[in-house]
Amino acid sequence: MTQFMTSRFWNVSSAYGQLDGLEEIVESAKAAIRTLIGAEPNDEVIFTSGATESNVWAVAEGARRCTSCRWILSSQIEHPSINESLENLQKQGVEVRWVPVTRNGTFDLNKLADLVDYNLCFASLMFAHNETGVIQPLREAAILIRERAPQCLIHTDATQAIGKMPVSLLDELSMVDLISFSGHKFHGPKGIGGLIIRNGKTLQPLICGGGQQQNLRSGTINIPAIAGISAAATKCGKLLQENRHISIQLIRDKFEEHIRLHFPDVFILGKQAPRLPNTSFWGIPGIDADDFVYTSATHGIVIGKGSACSAQSLKPSHTAMLMGYSYDEASSLVRVSSSFDTSLNELIDFSDKIHESYP
Amino acid sequence: MTQFMTSRFWNVSSAYGQLDGLEEIVESAKAAIRTLIGAEPNDEVIFTSGATESNVWAVAEGARRCTSCRWILSSQIEHPSINESLENLQKQGVEVRWVPVTRNGTFDLNKLADLVDYNLCFASLMFAHNETGVIQPLREAAILIRERAPQCLIHTDATQAIGKMPVSLLDELSMVDLISFSGHKFHGPKGIGGLIIRNGKTLQPLICGGGQQQNLRSGTINIPAIAGISAAATKCGKLLQENRHISIQLIRDKFEEHIRLHFPDVFILGKQAPRLPNTSFWGIPGIDADDFVYTSATHGIVIGKGSACSAQSLKPSHTAMLMGYSYDEASSLVRVSSSFDTSLNELIDFSDKIHESYP
Repeated sequence: MTQFMTSRFWNVSSAYGQLDGLEEIVESAKAAIRTLIGAEPNDEVIFTSGATESNVWAVAEGARRCTSCRWILSSQIEHPSINESLENLQKQGVEVRWVPVTRNGTFDLNKLADLVDYNLCFASLMFAHNETGVIQPLREAAILIRERAPQCLIHTDATQAIGKMPVSLLDELSMVDLISFSGHKFHGPKGIGGLIIRNGKTLQPLICGGGQQQNLRSGTINIPAIAGISAAATKCGKLLQENRHISIQLIRDKFEEHIRLHFPDVFILGKQAPRLPNTSFWGIPGIDADDFVYTSATHGIVIGKGSACSAQSLKPSHTAMLMGYSYDEASSLVRVSSSFDTSLNELIDFSDKIHESYP
Repeated sequence: MTQFMTSRFWNVSSAYGQLDGLEEIVESAKAAIRTLIGAEPNDEVIFTSGATESNVWAVAEGARRCTSCRWILSSQIEHPSINESLENLQKQGVEVRWVPVTRNGTFDLNKLADLVDYNLCFASLMFAHNETGVIQPLREAAILIRERAPQCLIHTDATQAIGKMPVSLLDELSMVDLISFSGHKFHGPKGIGGLIIRNGKTLQPLICGGGQQQNLRSGTINIPAIAGISAAATKCGKLLQENRHISIQLIRDKFEEHIRLHFPDVFILGKQAPRLPNTSFWGIPGIDADDFVYTSATHGIVIGKGSACSAQSLKPSHTAMLMGYSYDEASSLVRVSSSFDTSLNELIDFSDKIHESYP
């Protein structure tokens, strides 16, 4: 990234940028993303400023397709960039139906089946949840949607999953048309993400102008960030091939056992569902999350309270309450996320330190 | 920037980010931008992924305000992010009136006066042109608009001017409500820009979700890029205070004289108008711009052919033709832009080298 910020700072669209081979940097980044998610060369990768932009863009396209009598499907536990965009559409008169969630944190597929009909034109259903880490039955949902509403454009926000677990556009994501991701979720830089466009679908741009990226997302191409996300995708792709996510999952499970030893009444959200290997979202009755997060920070340990987006919000996790947890329970929830570099010793040490703080 | 990409990579909205003082990085960047453009503390600075996003956002707000019988004003020579966004609105039935341009490359204020009436709800008029560098009579245009349409929301794309010449929200921009800018136009990083929101105006977000930046622009705050734009704004602000833009202008004028010595029939666009100090847009009859740009590149000199956005386009400058230049003339146009680091010797050397290539 430094190289492209200091000496090779040309505009990729300029003659000099072309001579310097900057287009190849973009192409190789797209290839690294495709490899990471098992995509094919005709799956288009369009870079955006991050998954929030990608999600808002996908919903805007859904709205454009939502002519009279047609409607949009989503779930009650989407990221706010989906949720709020859809609520804005509802205020404009667009019909949106929301899939509820089970106690395990997964979409209620029976309820989903009750909702879907031929007039569904756009569905946005997340792949892994940003707080619980619960992996959703997206394939099952997509099969159901495709059966009853074959023309429906299907989007998934896969931001939390991509780079943390193996995903494949040939497998669990095969029926999805649009996929959002963010670089900083897998050790890439902030300010870069993208939208994968598949199955020959055509979109109107959200951000138009200079015509960059096949006129799908204008604005000067952010080469340093693209070089960064490319390196991160390549690195995480290799680690996943080495099954390092399985080690991370084993470490996470051991950590949860250890927490339970210290705090027998801990409750772990989505424990019964498939989850991201690196995520643990739990609460200890009587310990407030804010207090817990700051106590952890004084030990040099960075954990979250729900999603970082809403860390400054006073309200506890909306998702936890939809899963059936009480306000008090939700108020104690903290999220521990490990990276490929996190060791079991670090997590055990953390567990012991918080036990000392809350004897 | 490196510091925030390697060791202080926390999410600014997380508890740890707050403890590490990342919010202060954002606040000090906003202060640096305000100082650069003579803004006051209540002029809100919202960071975006760049001026293209800022422009699209401003137009979206204009569209939202454009209820029946009301209309939008812009010019024929705006950046494509304004132009195309407005053309899309026209297709949806919104009335847009376009101010034409004079032979000098400035808005035709008489024609503008003929257009404006009470029902004008949004105006987007650029401050300095991205190809010619011509500084527009924005203050005069804004006075005229305010007189006849006091409620009109006025936006300017000041991307080309900010950081290259002194600008002031207390002076030539005092009547403007929204101002777009991009970091990479003044030695800042790519992927960061912003929209200044003034005079107590309220906007709907283009990109909503996590609620960052007072819910005006959601998405994880791009701290490394914000640290970068902050440093660039501070540095350019100091150079402008030292009147370094005047030296740059003198060097540019000398360079143009030198080019004319070698190529007596050179024609320089906007030569009779106030221009950005660092920009020179000209053609030599009979020499094709593409050939010229690549010849310059082989000498290690990076120049543009019109705007970088459209460098890959086969069409010559739209703006030049609107100014009354022929297709052939427009096909020879190249743009030489210098930075605060460019020396007269470098420009004279360039002039001599191209004279050797085109004897």
